Amino acid sequence: MTKKNRLIYLPLGGAGEIGMNMYLYGFGPKGKERYILVDVGVTFPDMDTTPGVDLIMADPSYIVERADRLEAIIITHAHEDHVGAIGLLYPQLQAPIYCRKFTAAIARNKMEKNGQNPDHVHDVGAWPEQITVGPFTLGFMPIAHSIPEASALVIDTAAGRVIHTGDFKNDPNPIVGEPYNPELVREISKDGVLALICDSTNVFSPSKGRSEADIGPAIREMMVAAKGLVAATTFGSNVARLKTLAQAAADSGRKVVVVGRAMETMIANAFATGVMTDFPPILDVEEAHDVPRNKLLVLATGSQGERRAATAGLARGKYRGLELKSGDTFLFSSKTIPGNEVSVAYILNQLAEKGVNVIDDTSGLYHVSGHANRPDLEEMHRLVNADLVVPMHGQYRHLREHAEIVQAKGDDAVIAPNGTMIELSHGGKHVESVETGRTYLDGKPLIGALDGVVRERLQMAMRGHVLVSLVIEEDGELLDGSWVQTVGLPDNPRVDGGLEGQLEDEIDKVLARAKKKSLASDEGIEALVSRTSNQVCKDIIGKKPVCTVLINRLMVE
Amino acid sequence: MTKKNRLIYLPLGGAGEIGMNMYLYGFGPKGKERYILVDVGVTFPDMDTTPGVDLIMADPSYIVERADRLEAIIITHAHEDHVGAIGLLYPQLQAPIYCRKFTAAIARNKMEKNGQNPDHVHDVGAWPEQITVGPFTLGFMPIAHSIPEASALVIDTAAGRVIHTGDFKNDPNPIVGEPYNPELVREISKDGVLALICDSTNVFSPSKGRSEADIGPAIREMMVAAKGLVAATTFGSNVARLKTLAQAAADSGRKVVVVGRAMETMIANAFATGVMTDFPPILDVEEAHDVPRNKLLVLATGSQGERRAATAGLARGKYRGLELKSGDTFLFSSKTIPGNEVSVAYILNQLAEKGVNVIDDTSGLYHVSGHANRPDLEEMHRLVNADLVVPMHGQYRHLREHAEIVQAKGDDAVIAPNGTMIELSHGGKHVESVETGRTYLDGKPLIGALDGVVRERLQMAMRGHVLVSLVIEEDGELLDGSWVQTVGLPDNPRVDGGLEGQLEDEIDKVLARAKKKSLASDEGIEALVSRTSNQVCKDIIGKKPVCTVLINRLMVE
Repeated sequence: MTKKNRLIYLPLGGAGEIGMNMYLYGFGPKGKERYILVDVGVTFPDMDTTPGVDLIMADPSYIVERADRLEAIIITHAHEDHVGAIGLLYPQLQAPIYCRKFTAAIARNKMEKNGQNPDHVHDVGAWPEQITVGPFTLGFMPIAHSIPEASALVIDTAAGRVIHTGDFKNDPNPIVGEPYNPELVREISKDGVLALICDSTNVFSPSKGRSEADIGPAIREMMVAAKGLVAATTFGSNVARLKTLAQAAADSGRKVVVVGRAMETMIANAFATGVMTDFPPILDVEEAHDVPRNKLLVLATGSQGERRAATAGLARGKYRGLELKSGDTFLFSSKTIPGNEVSVAYILNQLAEKGVNVIDDTSGLYHVSGHANRPDLEEMHRLVNADLVVPMHGQYRHLREHAEIVQAKGDDAVIAPNGTMIELSHGGKHVESVETGRTYLDGKPLIGALDGVVRERLQMAMRGHVLVSLVIEEDGELLDGSWVQTVGLPDNPRVDGGLEGQLEDEIDKVLARAKKKSLASDEGIEALVSRTSNQVCKDIIGKKPVCTVLINRLMVE
Repeated sequence: MTKKNRLIYLPLGGAGEIGMNMYLYGFGPKGKERYILVDVGVTFPDMDTTPGVDLIMADPSYIVERADRLEAIIITHAHEDHVGAIGLLYPQLQAPIYCRKFTAAIARNKMEKNGQNPDHVHDVGAWPEQITVGPFTLGFMPIAHSIPEASALVIDTAAGRVIHTGDFKNDPNPIVGEPYNPELVREISKDGVLALICDSTNVFSPSKGRSEADIGPAIREMMVAAKGLVAATTFGSNVARLKTLAQAAADSGRKVVVVGRAMETMIANAFATGVMTDFPPILDVEEAHDVPRNKLLVLATGSQGERRAATAGLARGKYRGLELKSGDTFLFSSKTIPGNEVSVAYILNQLAEKGVNVIDDTSGLYHVSGHANRPDLEEMHRLVNADLVVPMHGQYRHLREHAEIVQAKGDDAVIAPNGTMIELSHGGKHVESVETGRTYLDGKPLIGALDGVVRERLQMAMRGHVLVSLVIEEDGELLDGSWVQTVGLPDNPRVDGGLEGQLEDEIDKVLARAKKKSLASDEGIEALVSRTSNQVCKDIIGKKPVCTVLINRLMVE
């Protein structure tokens, strides 16, 4: 029985959060499966949980330990949460990378940036082209999304066909890239599909999604009506939106300027890979000064309020010689991702102080989502008509809601959050639970989320830091007194000598009273000093700071 | 000319953010004004800007320096952002506090909690009752809001009448407390109003606001349809909502249990002060076990995802013996305040994992705001028909939008953010700019936002902390080597001795090479060591941590 081939699915990231996608498929006898890894994405740190961290990705340990059986890495599309960690984790994975041309350009860039050989990235054409890696035959089915060349994967093994949607929406006119093609989905699915692994991001949006083409006219109208300069931001990778915005500008007699590297890179890649063939002429930012303000559109990066991006720069003051003024208009042609509300509001207020008219997404006129809403998901379920639906790309509540929609129709769905290995060739049976987690890029090194490093930072931030330096003589006696320095703590002026003075006095007293035995070990001293620090600080400032004791033992020379 | 009386308005907090309200009115000759302070509120800290801080309030320095001329403190209503800092700042303000009965109960509680005499809080009845403090005659005009006894202030001086709305909505049926009474507003305004100082919170909401009474039927229907236990959360101070929820429960055959101190206190105060006279019977939580699950409503605090509150407790597991199960329903009868989205989503996912059906505010069926929307604001402008509208209680963009609505009709409005002193008796002329800021409650002490304490914490959190302890002999020579400890930093295993070992080696080398002169002063040593720490860390881990050097100089005995 154990020699029987099985097809397993194991999400390592992305099924339990929106971000850091990483899905593993395996085929073969138990313990001898050959693998493909779909997407190697990142998610972004925040002060609440990950201060100082640069990027967050799924912990790849499970597949790293089995890397000799990893046949390929597949990237569905070039969003950061799908491709962002490829260069960082490649050294541990070491398998050929396959994706479509535009995605490949971005993936190669990530590889180079991290000192990896970009030649490991291979272009694959759209369906009906297929590649074979180990027991898998794979095809990239074009699907619409908010980035060019997004693809669903058609994964064939001896067990049958699986469709992994990646991120998608049912957009018949996405402006750049291939439209939603229900005929193609039906054709590919017609001989039966074992499982549909399906995007869940917008499952809570009850109305049918709108097309990218729907917002062009409203944006054009807005630009015609606007009296001063118009600036607009969106995700740099949303090449279609950039084109919609630029075209609206051209149609309303405005020249287009692009500020922010992410946008420039994406536009260049879209041309280089042929996914975009026309775009209104882009003016150099230096030439913008010669154009009347009411004849300008400035496209700026930083729609999520990122402090170093062009939007934040324009909100603060001059950015690359451009300056917004009273009567200008700023358009957020984007959705604020949960967690970024405060950063975005900060910018909205700065713009308001300049007298700039801000248009955000409240009206729904100037932005459409890149993900399938509930009715669109149901349409995909119907077209594919798989034996089983497995929701992915969502927080737990998204996965659950998505599964319930399927089950409510009498069909099968399985909730498989990160670490849940299910057998697709056995109706989605839960066969194993695997430990999963997060890996942080922290400056140069990758560190584990549970290494304690970030916990220490959070504790210093919440509680402040008391540093105590002691010099212990050869005979175990404390030399001079203790030396205390506090960092991130108020030095209460109402106490004599301040907080530091009070700490030194009390620590000296406690150490003088202490039995020789408890001074013999560093641990004993640390325990005494920490306890004293807690008591003194709790009393004076109402907090128990982190306490670090540095013990210098004088050596007998 | 300078002897002429003038009426000035100076927001110290609340006009530039939503929260920490504090508005100063002064009347008298320039430099000799007598003052009243309206509201002494707090806002809440976050990890991004204020880790470890307990509460944030407006810096009261301007009025503290003139406290001998402060006639009274007025509290418009009992929300934390209006009353929360009264006990903390009272020692510096020392003026009698006036408010209505329910608000007074909460204010006295705040005073006692902070060791202040609650007898400084005086009850004032609703309009037409008036009190006179210095040159001011004041009345509390009942106004509807999401807490009982919210009041607009009618501020009379020899210069004329000013109406300060506090927070309000135009609700003809607020369930608890006085309804919106346009006749009263018109009557009070009929002889002319110099200025309307007006809530701006919901200025971006384009539709007319709904009444508290509108949501009762939908909540009852939901409770009838729900199969298991129903739990619901809202702000504890929203007594009307608690009553709406409890009444819906009673009407659908459910017993009511309340968990969370904030709610219990508010309900008790509402009864004690007579603002609420009936409420369905409340069951002790211990008795809940004897009631079938589908006959229970649990009212829980913590609608904003607060970790220690009842909602978070119920999402995690058992809370006071109560446990949610698959098939139960959890209702968020509340709005998620920007900045709390991630905490709330965390709870939504925990509830989803338990199989609990979560109903949030997406549908708009189960929550109404406590603030006036744009058309309601316009109605208030019309009723009062003041010479001048001054928007307050909002971020800058709210103030600006609110002023533009008024100006678009050809009327006068002035934007006066925190620190902008305007002369209401002179058409809102900007007469002075005053430095304003924030004060933090940090454990026990109050500290200034610019004291550097919080900046140090943020730096430790973002960059980690390198501690270096040195022992310098009488002759200025370094004794033994340096002793380095890192906190909040990865100890890179790829380098010999780890990060700490590398730091010690390099610091020892640098100090050995250093000229005697640069070792003579602590500053010289610190500069050398910090520079070395930066170089080594940047090289090995790609970061420049905070570096604190503790120098123990051995004394000649």
